[in-house]
Amino acid sequence: MHKVNNKFTNTSHFVTELKLCTIRLIDNSKFPWIILIPKRTKVTDITELKTKDQLLLMREIVFASKIMKKLFNTRKLNIEKIGNIVSQLHVHIIVRNNKDCSWPLSVWVVKEKKYSILDLKEMIKKIRNAFK
Amino acid sequence: MHKVNNKFTNTSHFVTELKLCTIRLIDNSKFPWIILIPKRTKVTDITELKTKDQLLLMREIVFASKIMKKLFNTRKLNIEKIGNIVSQLHVHIIVRNNKDCSWPLSVWVVKEKKYSILDLKEMIKKIRNAFK
Repeated sequence: MHKVNNKFTNTSHFVTELKLCTIRLIDNSKFPWIILIPKRTKVTDITELKTKDQLLLMREIVFASKIMKKLFNTRKLNIEKIGNIVSQLHVHIIVRNNKDCSWPLSVWVVKEKKYSILDLKEMIKKIRNAFK
Repeated sequence: MHKVNNKFTNTSHFVTELKLCTIRLIDNSKFPWIILIPKRTKVTDITELKTKDQLLLMREIVFASKIMKKLFNTRKLNIEKIGNIVSQLHVHIIVRNNKDCSWPLSVWVVKEKKYSILDLKEMIKKIRNAFK
């Protein structure tokens, strides 16, 4: 497994590996929410990736998006590269629907709620299986 | 010029055209903030674009990102595909720095402040020239 920034391990859990990215589940039960972390050192911005990796990142965003849309039965995802707090490049893929707790606003306006230990295990398993 | 959703015209102003995307400036003087709108009808999600357009979108995100970083002298951008309110696919590129008014939080947590007419004209001109 690629070495992961400690700041990610505090707020998310390992799900699976793609060719370019590690996928982790954000520990917030309010939204099914994964992050894609390119396995490249010292990269904080998409522009810093090589062109080949930029295009692979788009392919993996699309691949993960399709899986999350199907798995959680939604047409709506938020896809965000923010990185204000954890600067290492990572892309959020967040499942949204018009009944979720911050709709239509950003997920960033509501306080997180962690999963129970049981729910967390099940969620990771469910998403990991969907990526197989 | 590609026909633009009315909802965009209320909150943003035309800057320039790339091959895939129209670029518009969001009318919020708190952040230099553009959106890229792929000129494809009835597309609400990156997964709905053809593969060729997905990769071209990544290339145009990178192209625009480099211009915005240089023009506004920052290493930090937020790049976001949200679309909760305006569903037509569009990607936000927002210039951030650690002295801006919502740092390190999302731009969505602060109220917008429109440009003056003069500042708006100058900002559009400045960005349009940078894309030439």
